[in-house]
Amino acid sequence: MNARERFATARVARLATTGPDGPHVVPIVFAVAGDTLFHAIDHKPKRTHALKRLANLRADPRASVLADAYDEDWERLWWARADGTASILAPGHAEALALLAERYPQYRDTPPDGPVIAIAVTRWSSWSARGDD
Amino acid sequence: MNARERFATARVARLATTGPDGPHVVPIVFAVAGDTLFHAIDHKPKRTHALKRLANLRADPRASVLADAYDEDWERLWWARADGTASILAPGHAEALALLAERYPQYRDTPPDGPVIAIAVTRWSSWSARGDD
Repeated sequence: MNARERFATARVARLATTGPDGPHVVPIVFAVAGDTLFHAIDHKPKRTHALKRLANLRADPRASVLADAYDEDWERLWWARADGTASILAPGHAEALALLAERYPQYRDTPPDGPVIAIAVTRWSSWSARGDD
Repeated sequence: MNARERFATARVARLATTGPDGPHVVPIVFAVAGDTLFHAIDHKPKRTHALKRLANLRADPRASVLADAYDEDWERLWWARADGTASILAPGHAEALALLAERYPQYRDTPPDGPVIAIAVTRWSSWSARGDD
């Protein structure tokens, strides 16, 4: 399984950005289409943590997104990472919302109504304890 | 449950740092003692991803560490985050290794032999979908 395929098996990932106060990291749900990773803000816009990822990416669009699996059997550990450059798209981006709703039934009745983050992935990387990445 | 307690229930977290190429994020095992978070490098030192987190922290010691729980019932989602400043300690740091071995039986026979990252946490934060954080 290559890094992108491995990444796409995960249900949650963590988005790291850089801000004036240092690194920032939040869990995200996401969808992958080719070399683009989509995430949509689904929180009320006044929430600080939602604004921070957006403010950081507006000032520095570089993003690193990590998917990983933990298991007490450390021979089963793996991670996959997507590094790239983010664009912030207006709410309601049709392709992103369709892909997210396809992956997450939770979004079908109440689609995320905030801005969409589209990360153009320039590097997929992965690691597994078993060395099968 | 406060943010530090919630964080400490997690078995894995993700360490975000800032480097010359942008943000960097890797999964880590960790132990918490008061407001210090310990992590030890347990990979061969020539591995690129081990060196990168250390190189980043040497140049910019600010660190953000995230623990989170994913569940298909989004009412059960939570995360907790530790933001702080990292010091890099020599391999074999007794307190760190004891705390890590206490949490992770995997380390009892083969303690991590690399440098120890000690993060002085200046801010614990957390969120839960149920609002009980």
